[in-house]
Amino acid sequence: MSMGATARFAGFAVDAVPGEAARRILRLSLLDWAACAIGGADEPVARILRDMAVEDGGRAEASVVGAVGRLPARAAALVNGAASHALDFDDTHFAHIGHPSVAVIPAALAVAEKMGADDAAFADAALVGAEVSVRLGVWLGRGHYQTGFHQTATAGLFGAVAAAGRLLGLDAGQMAHALGLAATRAAGLKSQFGTMGKPYHAGMAAAAGVECAALAARGFVSRPDGIECAQGFGTTHAGGADAAGFDGMGEVWLFETVSHKFHACCHGTHAVLEALAGIADAVVPGEVSAVEIAVHPRWLSVCDLPEPATGLEAKFSFRLTAAMVLAGLDTGLSGTFTDAAARDPALVALRDRVRVAGDDGLAETAARVRVTCVDRVIEAAHDIAAPFAADVLDARLRAKAAGLLGAERAGALAEVTVEAPQVAGLAALLRG
Amino acid sequence: MSMGATARFAGFAVDAVPGEAARRILRLSLLDWAACAIGGADEPVARILRDMAVEDGGRAEASVVGAVGRLPARAAALVNGAASHALDFDDTHFAHIGHPSVAVIPAALAVAEKMGADDAAFADAALVGAEVSVRLGVWLGRGHYQTGFHQTATAGLFGAVAAAGRLLGLDAGQMAHALGLAATRAAGLKSQFGTMGKPYHAGMAAAAGVECAALAARGFVSRPDGIECAQGFGTTHAGGADAAGFDGMGEVWLFETVSHKFHACCHGTHAVLEALAGIADAVVPGEVSAVEIAVHPRWLSVCDLPEPATGLEAKFSFRLTAAMVLAGLDTGLSGTFTDAAARDPALVALRDRVRVAGDDGLAETAARVRVTCVDRVIEAAHDIAAPFAADVLDARLRAKAAGLLGAERAGALAEVTVEAPQVAGLAALLRG
Repeated sequence: MSMGATARFAGFAVDAVPGEAARRILRLSLLDWAACAIGGADEPVARILRDMAVEDGGRAEASVVGAVGRLPARAAALVNGAASHALDFDDTHFAHIGHPSVAVIPAALAVAEKMGADDAAFADAALVGAEVSVRLGVWLGRGHYQTGFHQTATAGLFGAVAAAGRLLGLDAGQMAHALGLAATRAAGLKSQFGTMGKPYHAGMAAAAGVECAALAARGFVSRPDGIECAQGFGTTHAGGADAAGFDGMGEVWLFETVSHKFHACCHGTHAVLEALAGIADAVVPGEVSAVEIAVHPRWLSVCDLPEPATGLEAKFSFRLTAAMVLAGLDTGLSGTFTDAAARDPALVALRDRVRVAGDDGLAETAARVRVTCVDRVIEAAHDIAAPFAADVLDARLRAKAAGLLGAERAGALAEVTVEAPQVAGLAALLRG
Repeated sequence: MSMGATARFAGFAVDAVPGEAARRILRLSLLDWAACAIGGADEPVARILRDMAVEDGGRAEASVVGAVGRLPARAAALVNGAASHALDFDDTHFAHIGHPSVAVIPAALAVAEKMGADDAAFADAALVGAEVSVRLGVWLGRGHYQTGFHQTATAGLFGAVAAAGRLLGLDAGQMAHALGLAATRAAGLKSQFGTMGKPYHAGMAAAAGVECAALAARGFVSRPDGIECAQGFGTTHAGGADAAGFDGMGEVWLFETVSHKFHACCHGTHAVLEALAGIADAVVPGEVSAVEIAVHPRWLSVCDLPEPATGLEAKFSFRLTAAMVLAGLDTGLSGTFTDAAARDPALVALRDRVRVAGDDGLAETAARVRVTCVDRVIEAAHDIAAPFAADVLDARLRAKAAGLLGAERAGALAEVTVEAPQVAGLAALLRG
């Protein structure tokens, strides 16, 4: 009999040795994750959870973003997970459509801090956990997402368990019980999008991951085949049991193709904004007579508000965000998306020259743009699935962090993430 | 537009005034719940969770069964929920097939102790919460259960939220957000049955109930229609949206028909054991030549092990448990179900004279028995759905508690539950 999904993920979580290319991306995602967490620390969802966790108190094990003292690892994972997803500016993996870092890194960091783990072991645990979440997400398949489940919460929990369990030194059998426990805890619905429930999902997954791993370390018995067994997590949650989730596991690291956000607005607009950013220097806004945008039709129901009235609505408007980029505004800053910007006469005039069309010949991650000026027509295209050159990605993530936190703090953060992950240093910067 | 399910349950949770008959049953269930919790406090699942919670520590808010000090309400609910379901000896409601008390009472007690709630307010909150869990279970329907979800965990969470939220003084709007959060947290699979995952479900529900209610009290925003909205909890979890869940809500208290366990074995055997217990005094075991048992066919795949080899297997054997009752053994004591009993020659001889048959004309809660002795045939029947006379139920639950805890401790427990619920007194007895 071939090994079941739970046992395969458990074995991988315990034994995998990441490749250097994946480790490099993980270090960049650590910077990006921490910048999003610190940047989101004062959002209402983060404040509410932090206030609750601080009031509950407990053993000083792990650092909480925006709090002076330490709290139990589980509580730290809850707050840090939600805070890092509060701005919705963290990384995304399109293989399963989920945000791997916000569920996995907070669990890994909290347990690493608690256990006094080796810095490299922490980074590898986070990477292995993120890889488990993406691959389990592929195993669950699109049906799981389309039915209404939020992979950040569901697949994310299994990744958080893998990361936390690896740092706790679980053997493969204990890891299977920990993942089996996750099978009966995993939850999170897309119908919460637009509410605090969405960032809470990341915290739920991170905190439950810490708890499931800790219980398995103490001898807890669950179903060690809980993911794939009859009436297990897969069949009860519209999982497709797609064997592609295991393709090349251990050799190929899907996390290498994680996508970082460089615009503080809906991910569906990003290919357009990248294409326009590449030509914006050559365009004088007052001379633009028409802007034509082509995207995959799926985005037309997501982020094509033609005349956004508020800053929040602007984040879901191809036309206004395109106008912003052409006008030289920095769409990488959340503060750019104000109600005033949505009403600004110059931006509105430019917005009204933008036309958006669907083209199902395009990938979901791709866009084409065509800008007609007084004396010429400029065309460009972009696919956000295309990998960045290493130095470009590094520079852009450092710039994004500086935009969120200021240059000095971002520089300090890069020291303890991109340069070489440091558990204590990263934890200290979270505390503020 | 008619009011949605979440809003209806929220309004009920905030405003309902229980009837006296339901309050009487709740007081009995408080005794039964506490006896099960104390009796289960040293089971491995309870020890592991308690050790973890004690290590995490935190603010001294609520009592934990078997621990000297207090812990945060959420942690107390987690441990007490799992401990009270560890023996699988707690109450069951057959309208939705779930164990309402083990998810709801721990949440209510922990929050009541934290808030210094009025004793009567605590009991009413527990009752309203239990009623919400049963009615939400009816709304979800059999399809939810058959698909693989464990209502004790899923419906139980909504009940725990209702109880905790009521004690926190949530208004109807806040309660809807708390229930909406529960919609994105509720989880628990039947495939965990036979592992520590099953009792963990009760603790998960109780703890998450405390957390969701506490977050709503702090202003957390979720989907206030999260149960019934598109891709809400109902549609994503095979919920039938059966309007019967609301029939007579506020007037009729379904919790009045909760079923208490009086035998420390599978609930499927109980109708048979009750029928036999009623005639056992008239039977001399050595004179029995045949015992015929008729039950609903659904139980034949659940608890009809013909020749159980162990004490645990004996709990799932109509034939051996029937022999035990006819031989005068006390099936109300878990200690009766030993490996030695399963091998005892006299019991085995009696067991081998028992024949079991399915009869789909019987209710799932009913059984008929026919005992042929040397000189006569005795017939009896029982339906565990039939209500007990008030004094009989009271006496049997006190006797059950005495069997679990000894007469003195059971008497003290009855004082702070059946006589008049007392938060502080009940909490003190849990601590031991």
